[in-house]
Amino acid sequence: MKPLHDVQSGPAEVALSIDRVGVKNLLQPLVVRDRARGKQNTTARIDLMADLPEHFKGTHMSRFVEALAEWTGALDYRSVKELLLDIRRRLEARSAYVTFRFPYFIVKRSPATGSPGIMSYQCRFTGELGPGAEGPDFLLELTAPVMTVCPCSLALCEGHGAHSQRAEVRLSVRANGFLWLEELVELAEASGSAPVYTLVKREDEKALTEAAFARPCFVEDVVRNAAQALSRHPLVRWYRVEVESFESIHNHSAFAAIEGRGPAGIL
Amino acid sequence: MKPLHDVQSGPAEVALSIDRVGVKNLLQPLVVRDRARGKQNTTARIDLMADLPEHFKGTHMSRFVEALAEWTGALDYRSVKELLLDIRRRLEARSAYVTFRFPYFIVKRSPATGSPGIMSYQCRFTGELGPGAEGPDFLLELTAPVMTVCPCSLALCEGHGAHSQRAEVRLSVRANGFLWLEELVELAEASGSAPVYTLVKREDEKALTEAAFARPCFVEDVVRNAAQALSRHPLVRWYRVEVESFESIHNHSAFAAIEGRGPAGIL
Amino acid sequence: MKPLHDVQSGPAEVALSIDRVGVKNLLQPLVVRDRARGKQNTTARIDLMADLPEHFKGTHMSRFVEALAEWTGALDYRSVKELLLDIRRRLEARSAYVTFRFPYFIVKRSPATGSPGIMSYQCRFTGELGPGAEGPDFLLELTAPVMTVCPCSLALCEGHGAHSQRAEVRLSVRANGFLWLEELVELAEASGSAPVYTLVKREDEKALTEAAFARPCFVEDVVRNAAQALSRHPLVRWYRVEVESFESIHNHSAFAAIEGRGPAGIL
Amino acid sequence: MKPLHDVQSGPAEVALSIDRVGVKNLLQPLVVRDRARGKQNTTARIDLMADLPEHFKGTHMSRFVEALAEWTGALDYRSVKELLLDIRRRLEARSAYVTFRFPYFIVKRSPATGSPGIMSYQCRFTGELGPGAEGPDFLLELTAPVMTVCPCSLALCEGHGAHSQRAEVRLSVRANGFLWLEELVELAEASGSAPVYTLVKREDEKALTEAAFARPCFVEDVVRNAAQALSRHPLVRWYRVEVESFESIHNHSAFAAIEGRGPAGIL
Repeated sequence: MKPLHDVQSGPAEVALSIDRVGVKNLLQPLVVRDRARGKQNTTARIDLMADLPEHFKGTHMSRFVEALAEWTGALDYRSVKELLLDIRRRLEARSAYVTFRFPYFIVKRSPATGSPGIMSYQCRFTGELGPGAEGPDFLLELTAPVMTVCPCSLALCEGHGAHSQRAEVRLSVRANGFLWLEELVELAEASGSAPVYTLVKREDEKALTEAAFARPCFVEDVVRNAAQALSRHPLVRWYRVEVESFESIHNHSAFAAIEGRGPAGIL
Repeated sequence: MKPLHDVQSGPAEVALSIDRVGVKNLLQPLVVRDRARGKQNTTARIDLMADLPEHFKGTHMSRFVEALAEWTGALDYRSVKELLLDIRRRLEARSAYVTFRFPYFIVKRSPATGSPGIMSYQCRFTGELGPGAEGPDFLLELTAPVMTVCPCSLALCEGHGAHSQRAEVRLSVRANGFLWLEELVELAEASGSAPVYTLVKREDEKALTEAAFARPCFVEDVVRNAAQALSRHPLVRWYRVEVESFESIHNHSAFAAIEGRGPAGIL
Repeated sequence: MKPLHDVQSGPAEVALSIDRVGVKNLLQPLVVRDRARGKQNTTARIDLMADLPEHFKGTHMSRFVEALAEWTGALDYRSVKELLLDIRRRLEARSAYVTFRFPYFIVKRSPATGSPGIMSYQCRFTGELGPGAEGPDFLLELTAPVMTVCPCSLALCEGHGAHSQRAEVRLSVRANGFLWLEELVELAEASGSAPVYTLVKREDEKALTEAAFARPCFVEDVVRNAAQALSRHPLVRWYRVEVESFESIHNHSAFAAIEGRGPAGIL
Repeated sequence: MKPLHDVQSGPAEVALSIDRVGVKNLLQPLVVRDRARGKQNTTARIDLMADLPEHFKGTHMSRFVEALAEWTGALDYRSVKELLLDIRRRLEARSAYVTFRFPYFIVKRSPATGSPGIMSYQCRFTGELGPGAEGPDFLLELTAPVMTVCPCSLALCEGHGAHSQRAEVRLSVRANGFLWLEELVELAEASGSAPVYTLVKREDEKALTEAAFARPCFVEDVVRNAAQALSRHPLVRWYRVEVESFESIHNHSAFAAIEGRGPAGIL
């Protein structure tokens, strides 16, 4: 039997190199390293890509899926580096790129009664191995919900009321060394008027409301609080903070963003 | 030249009649009747369907698109009835079904300064002409955002604070006669702690916060307020109300639903 | 210290009973029973609700979260029944409702080389315990992707080509007894021109394309194939099949739906 | 009566300047310049932002909404420049940023019978006026669906079949001078195996399938075709092309991206 024709290895009609080509939006189970429990089970949307030189017509898409299938262990810096190296080798590419989007779960105790509830945080972990790069560039992203109490509304009502709402704090970080997702959660949740919880009893609701009203925050305050904390974190090289507040007096959002360098990013 | 083969008119391999078959998710400009201005321009996601008897292999999908293209005028009960009759005739079907999902825009003035802002409301208008039915069954659906101030949190903090958030009131109505979208908006917005606005100045924010704190509402209160109003509206035959509140102390929603009959639905 | 005021247990201002009230869109890890491996880890969006009589102002939202936290074991008919009974008891309600939306993972081998790949299927499992009902009503829903090759296009091009595309087969089933998700997957995947795979090598791609072109299917054929199979399955009481085909020659979908009774649903 | 307190103009607690702050996700009607008809009506999701110096606590969110309300005329380069200048002035800011996401409608005639159908294309138009910039930086983005026929599958089946699917071509362009959205549509639609249509009769379906099978394309081919065309367009300074193909043999996508400079971007 003659071998099946390998169309992909033929010449490209348009001689342009491709920055990234691969598979997108694979949904699979994922094990992630967890500070409290060693590791946890979640599910992830995964993209796997490489570059393609100008003289090849196509990449071999099935090799990305094979690389992922043979990749083992929990998601962390070391294991993603191995996956990137494996993709670069299998695809005979100069660069490799992977990204994992997943919810991360943390049991958080309510502020007054200490009742445990499972919180979920949307995360994204991206690794890129550039052409000729010594090591991968990692980007860690996490979204945490917080409560914001409007300082303007509180001042106008002279303390007798103020509109509040859920807001999202989105952190993107490049770091020199290992950062736990739990650290980013703590930093994000400390930036708003109050954290949010999954399980809240009456005593918790009282404590939470009072704490939030004692610390009113505009999106401007939240984004600055988070940016300041990241700009002082010794491992942070680069960060971006976005805050989107789903205003309860509007049907649109208030938004603020700051991008900057951390201590590890200043040469 | 011999005519192209009409595969669709051939026999079905499995002799089952199909309840609904057609095209889904067409995105097109749409003109809608508007109480204040006669008509307004918006954009809609549109589904068009018919039944298919068991002895035909396929429907003729292009005829739905042609029916829509030749349909003219603004969206209202009369024009949708004409579209349903046209689809039933073109498809040689016993039943026809159309649904339009679109944002509807209303200029709303803020409560204190009267500043005008454009509000958008997600709507859905469905018409169905059943086999042997005298006339179409119409279903009108509208989602309006409101603010909810938590009565429990307000009581716990003895009036010095309470968490609030944006909530959505979703109304579904079958009516005997013409209902303006504006009527549904007014009814939904009167059901929460306060309406929301697009343009709010300081005086408005003060008035709005004070009004909302004077009328704290659980999702249970909001759903009952809207259900009671619909159950008393003389044109309403059937209604369903859903309220989803995007709690500012949680990362999940509070939800409530009531379905019932209006005065025009009691035999 | 005086106890905190229980606003929820106070009287309702509008004396209407509420059909469903509770928490919506909790995202949590979930263990699901798995035919091949006993159980599997996934993540789920969860709603938990109960009814509320007309004389109570509010439900106690935190009790739903507590019921879920104390619920153990893998998702199946028995464990969901226990959760429903627990919710009804904790909330002092007449009815209870829970729904879990989650991806379910199956390792599927490619048709020619037998290469294993992880497939994901969106599922929904709903349990409802009505007022005075002897046992819960369960609804099992699963969406499986398939490939459809257009019979009309194939006939027009006299076998030398035909447009194909990805389609989704959505099954909803009420059954008398236990149905594995794997059974629904097999039934759905047998209804289109060919199943889809995560890992496909050249030999597989050839086999898959040839199989699909040997079995061209309109959405009408797919929905009838699946409906016929469900209508003959001995455990099925009620079913609904929806097929949406993301046409490659259009920017909209073709759609078909059939609802009917199975052998176990005929009295 | 004493004036209401202006909290926003007070000092910031954290002295960090904010890159962008404003309103996000306003949904409003929009008029867009249209090559064939002068202008067209659509609806848009709109973000409006400015920077905020480190010494101010908050921006004045209502001024963005006022600027948008008083902005008139159809969306084009000139009108967006005016809006940016107005925002910068009203907010006393150094920079301004606006983005409009909207569907754009074009009546396209089918390839054989010339039947007219309304196509929709998701677009995004962004304008940014940086601190000290002479004029705004404009970014034009458009997504067009195309059909792709797999060259590998076609070769493996020796011309007797090949899987095809819908793919999206996403173009992002910075240009020296005016580019019509219609030009980007034509360029994107010429990059795949065939364009897609809203209204297709049998003769069209035959012509379209044959044309697509005569020009099989991987995502790699599509992205190169579009990138080459943009790299040669005399007005283009910078471009990015992304192609995502919703593979009919998989439940995930194939993806490719190229970023580069056009003739107007080379110094």
